[in-house]
Amino acid sequence: MSLNSIFQYFVPKDKKFFPLFEQAGANLIEMAKLLNISVNSTNLEERKELSKKLEDLEHVGDNITHQIHLELGRNFITPFDREDIHALASSLDDVADFIHGASNRMQLYNVEQPTQPMIEITALILEATEHVAKALFELKDLKNIRNITDSCVRINSVENKADYIFDKAVADLFEYEKDAISLIKQKEVLSAMEDATDKCEDVANVLESILVKNA
Amino acid sequence: MSLNSIFQYFVPKDKKFFPLFEQAGANLIEMAKLLNISVNSTNLEERKELSKKLEDLEHVGDNITHQIHLELGRNFITPFDREDIHALASSLDDVADFIHGASNRMQLYNVEQPTQPMIEITALILEATEHVAKALFELKDLKNIRNITDSCVRINSVENKADYIFDKAVADLFEYEKDAISLIKQKEVLSAMEDATDKCEDVANVLESILVKNA
Amino acid sequence: MSLNSIFQYFVPKDKKFFPLFEQAGANLIEMAKLLNISVNSTNLEERKELSKKLEDLEHVGDNITHQIHLELGRNFITPFDREDIHALASSLDDVADFIHGASNRMQLYNVEQPTQPMIEITALILEATEHVAKALFELKDLKNIRNITDSCVRINSVENKADYIFDKAVADLFEYEKDAISLIKQKEVLSAMEDATDKCEDVANVLESILVKNA
Repeated sequence: MSLNSIFQYFVPKDKKFFPLFEQAGANLIEMAKLLNISVNSTNLEERKELSKKLEDLEHVGDNITHQIHLELGRNFITPFDREDIHALASSLDDVADFIHGASNRMQLYNVEQPTQPMIEITALILEATEHVAKALFELKDLKNIRNITDSCVRINSVENKADYIFDKAVADLFEYEKDAISLIKQKEVLSAMEDATDKCEDVANVLESILVKNA
Repeated sequence: MSLNSIFQYFVPKDKKFFPLFEQAGANLIEMAKLLNISVNSTNLEERKELSKKLEDLEHVGDNITHQIHLELGRNFITPFDREDIHALASSLDDVADFIHGASNRMQLYNVEQPTQPMIEITALILEATEHVAKALFELKDLKNIRNITDSCVRINSVENKADYIFDKAVADLFEYEKDAISLIKQKEVLSAMEDATDKCEDVANVLESILVKNA
Repeated sequence: MSLNSIFQYFVPKDKKFFPLFEQAGANLIEMAKLLNISVNSTNLEERKELSKKLEDLEHVGDNITHQIHLELGRNFITPFDREDIHALASSLDDVADFIHGASNRMQLYNVEQPTQPMIEITALILEATEHVAKALFELKDLKNIRNITDSCVRINSVENKADYIFDKAVADLFEYEKDAISLIKQKEVLSAMEDATDKCEDVANVLESILVKNA
């Protein structure tokens, strides 16, 4: 056990951050679920409703980020370095932005029928957010570092899968989609979705960096 | 007041960094102003001249960044962590790169007439750089943390607006622009402009991270 | 000499990280060389083979990153801050991902004949990885900070050149390529290549940040 780990048993720490990170994680899962329902729905009106709900949940996420910032202002002692709490909150905020962004683009660009690769990447976004939430849940108990590392490895693996599906989908567009504007449109929606998994990978990177700092 | 804040009254600090950051901020405003004049001009020759001036100002920015690095090499004591000074200088450099990049793309791609969304996003870039410069000006006096936080919140809000205009503009291109190559060209120019506001948001993130570290 | 530099002569440090970083650097050069051979080959079968080899080398890189993480878990004392070792390893991993990504896109998108700008940017990727490897080699001997700084400056300069070639190539596509889908395809491949030099610049940024922290 490192000096740092021993140290943490003697220092009283404000525990207010952990419930907030857990809320942020739960909110991301909720958003990913709505995006999933949306790409699997053929009802344009339902998809419009879901996109509005996603916008609301993005604001919920903004509020959680804001509360984490307020706590940072109030607490001198934090469970890990202040700038890392800030970096983690920012990276979670980015995930919410991109999930909402993917849904928003589908609405704005009038995507009538989500394609198979869109459905697949969206399922991977949900999987990634579940691992993110799990890692955030374990964060309060740094004894289970292995569980957090494990979630990070899984997030990376999900991102790789999304990358692969994205590349293949774009290659297929180049081969079969002869309408250039429709091609660009689909590529942009797929790209927003793939970016959401990239942002989950960024969260994993921040988590890993926190772990190595406090190992 | 945190221990850290008390500490800073006893440690003599090199103040050479603050004027350099203020110069970097002023240079960004100047660049954003030239880009604004450019997108509002119908004179192709004038726009070519402005693009050259923007390239010169980007070099001015490079020199400021270089001087900040030289000062980092000379000073053992810095007003805040050395790596944060480096990160802040880099993020300001990025803003300059993207403002120049937006102008450069318009020249390279022979954009004859900047569109309404280009004019609007460029106005937002100017607004964002003004908030960036204001935050950098307040940096030397960490007593006014609220002012810096306030500027960061405003930069985020400006970036959201730019994002919204960008998404709407691309949606309109998909609906009304039937020439795919012209669509891509306009999308690329808009995207470079929107990226400039993203880079301002990155500056705000570095500033917030410095604030929470030294709160 | 700063206090920090004096300090490092008295602290025993684990030297296991340096050979791993050197291996990562050598692996990047190897990858860049294969990509170079590939874009200069007219033999589609050879290019397919090279793309497979690049995938293997990307896995070699993943293993090196993994070993760096294992060493971080084992060693309490590290030659520089733990989170910086993590950041450096991640940034090197990204370079490998994008070199492989560029090759992968050429395969997936059925690029039959790499263009002149693709050949030129690929040559710059090789140049950048050579400077990255040189900087990593010098890292074990922080007395030669000037050499590392020099490599970082060169990486930045190579990235600027790649940026310039990319912008010019895209402008030419807009002027001469009348098939929109072929235009997008070429732009995507060029963009993956240019991104690889961006990722080398990110490595330079991490290195510079480590240097200023330990100056």
